[in-house]
Amino acid sequence: MYKKRIEKTAEWLKNQGLGCAVLEDTEDRRTSAIRYLSGMNQDALLFIYSTGKTVLVPWDENLARKIAQADEILPYTEFKRDFATAVSALATGENGSPFSKIEISGDTPYPVYREISQLLPGVEILCRKEGIIDQIDLQKTYKDTKEMEYLEKACHITDRILEGLCRGFEENSIKTELEAALFIEMEARKLGAEGSGFDIIAAGPKRSFGIHAFPTFSNASLEKPGLSIFDFGVRYQGYTSDVTLTLVRGKTSKKQETMISLVEEAYNLAKDRAVCGADTREIALAVDRLFEKQGYTMPHSLGHGIGLDVHESPLIRSRDKKGTELKEGMVFTLEPGLYDPEAGGVRLENDFAITGNGPRVLTNSRILRIL
Amino acid sequence: MYKKRIEKTAEWLKNQGLGCAVLEDTEDRRTSAIRYLSGMNQDALLFIYSTGKTVLVPWDENLARKIAQADEILPYTEFKRDFATAVSALATGENGSPFSKIEISGDTPYPVYREISQLLPGVEILCRKEGIIDQIDLQKTYKDTKEMEYLEKACHITDRILEGLCRGFEENSIKTELEAALFIEMEARKLGAEGSGFDIIAAGPKRSFGIHAFPTFSNASLEKPGLSIFDFGVRYQGYTSDVTLTLVRGKTSKKQETMISLVEEAYNLAKDRAVCGADTREIALAVDRLFEKQGYTMPHSLGHGIGLDVHESPLIRSRDKKGTELKEGMVFTLEPGLYDPEAGGVRLENDFAITGNGPRVLTNSRILRIL
Repeated sequence: MYKKRIEKTAEWLKNQGLGCAVLEDTEDRRTSAIRYLSGMNQDALLFIYSTGKTVLVPWDENLARKIAQADEILPYTEFKRDFATAVSALATGENGSPFSKIEISGDTPYPVYREISQLLPGVEILCRKEGIIDQIDLQKTYKDTKEMEYLEKACHITDRILEGLCRGFEENSIKTELEAALFIEMEARKLGAEGSGFDIIAAGPKRSFGIHAFPTFSNASLEKPGLSIFDFGVRYQGYTSDVTLTLVRGKTSKKQETMISLVEEAYNLAKDRAVCGADTREIALAVDRLFEKQGYTMPHSLGHGIGLDVHESPLIRSRDKKGTELKEGMVFTLEPGLYDPEAGGVRLENDFAITGNGPRVLTNSRILRIL
Repeated sequence: MYKKRIEKTAEWLKNQGLGCAVLEDTEDRRTSAIRYLSGMNQDALLFIYSTGKTVLVPWDENLARKIAQADEILPYTEFKRDFATAVSALATGENGSPFSKIEISGDTPYPVYREISQLLPGVEILCRKEGIIDQIDLQKTYKDTKEMEYLEKACHITDRILEGLCRGFEENSIKTELEAALFIEMEARKLGAEGSGFDIIAAGPKRSFGIHAFPTFSNASLEKPGLSIFDFGVRYQGYTSDVTLTLVRGKTSKKQETMISLVEEAYNLAKDRAVCGADTREIALAVDRLFEKQGYTMPHSLGHGIGLDVHESPLIRSRDKKGTELKEGMVFTLEPGLYDPEAGGVRLENDFAITGNGPRVLTNSRILRIL
């Protein structure tokens, strides 16, 4: 699985005239690219050479030897746990002399870039917005059979949690944001997931106006009338789902009803248009127009790809100059939402895949009404 | 509270000849500096001017207006949600003309730095390792009365959770990593915390060998004999505690006993030395020597400051060339630990403060034995 991915990356390196590329996954700068190419899921550097060789430099060597695949594994302590030191030591060819051209990932801070440049005089060091990480992101956009299997499993677990959540609200056994969030976390792990894909948001009527409530869940009650939002995903073998359920409790205001039907209409419109060959920007623009006609604006994107990252390609939004064509192998969310400081928030989000047999709905979240 | 902090920062800007400094808190690059200076706890930019004025550019304007303090709040959408665009628009003096010298935080990626440089020709743009963020980190190192109060509250909640956790192990009502982790999360929120300060680690005998187990907790049993590690913190008003409890269950091997007594010895040694005026590197070196004499190496730092970040100044480790002098107002952890692929891991971590009346132990974690 990793071999094929590395071969593709190495070929790209060769075409770019690069001796190697270096990726870094640390507390300050997370990337899933190292997990994608080696299976290592914690702090590490990964060197990918144009020959197809890889060297992994993990923080936790014991763990790396258990779970990761790379041609060589060298502990970070060998390089004083310093990125620039490791790069200058390992960015060399078989004969030990430095490459003439290498790439470090585009999120490398400017001062670190300068340090490496000084340690490697005469070496051309690429560090660009659309470089190696984008190349790997492009690979990640098209899910292979194994990845599709993991995502389907994550979505299946998600659906079971959604069912339990709705039952909990209906039977009033889940009464607070805290109970909702812990129910999700508990069920996810019990059903075999690694855990949540990202911070669970459980925002009751008083807090659902925020796109991402803070704190993401509290001890606040869910029994009061109004709009509540539950946004979560579960991670299976690294791959995460992402759904949002809106709970509508009690008597609603006219404004709330308008927002609910607009979000439902936008969701159906987006779902119908999200077929193979469609342009993501066009879909997002259609939703923008629908909302604007009623005087509303959506303060976030319409959707995004999911996989090892909760936000990846394809991005489904109107603010880009160009959209992406939906193609087989893409897995993404659609999540229209509207927010108002008084009325609260409504968001409906499900996951979709473009398959050889057309688009497929992978999750079944909804807007749940309880009187 | 924020006013005083901004005044200090503005004075530093003036001394450095800077018109303004820009901080960025986003999904890719988190910093607590914006929360420290304005109270905003989600994605935003913060411009601090040498005049003492501040402009906050939040992603979620509604939320910012509810919780943050700044002289001006401008939604990020006004700048097409683009960092470079916002910087070039707002890095200007009262008369609207660009400053001659500004600073952006040192974690800004090289490509973004270049983009800003191109948008602001003739402006000197500092982006350095030891710049504005370090200046704010230095301020953050010395906790004021309010911060000390928050940390004490976080530590108090932590102690109550530790008691419950130990009881749960002793009475065998907490049987899996998952149950331990959810118990911590639930109690934290019930006791008024924002939640966990960081990913809870609950690693049973099979997984405690890793410094940071992955996944951080699973459905695995804690009932088997061996060493289990529980590493967690709770966040109160943004300030987090950080403790580690080791559970020793059943009959131990000779190696396990050696590791346990070495860690206890190291902990007591470190605790005794961590007094006002002590050098952090010297403390860490003393622990290194103790472990080395028995043929062990600790694969991580001995301790670190805590506050809005779980890892902040002072760093208590031997790998730096120079240590830090412990002074009044510093709050930090001490966490000696040893790990072995077969025997598992032992770590003991508590939080400490240097006060006017000497050092204080803020939490009471321990190595718990159950036969």
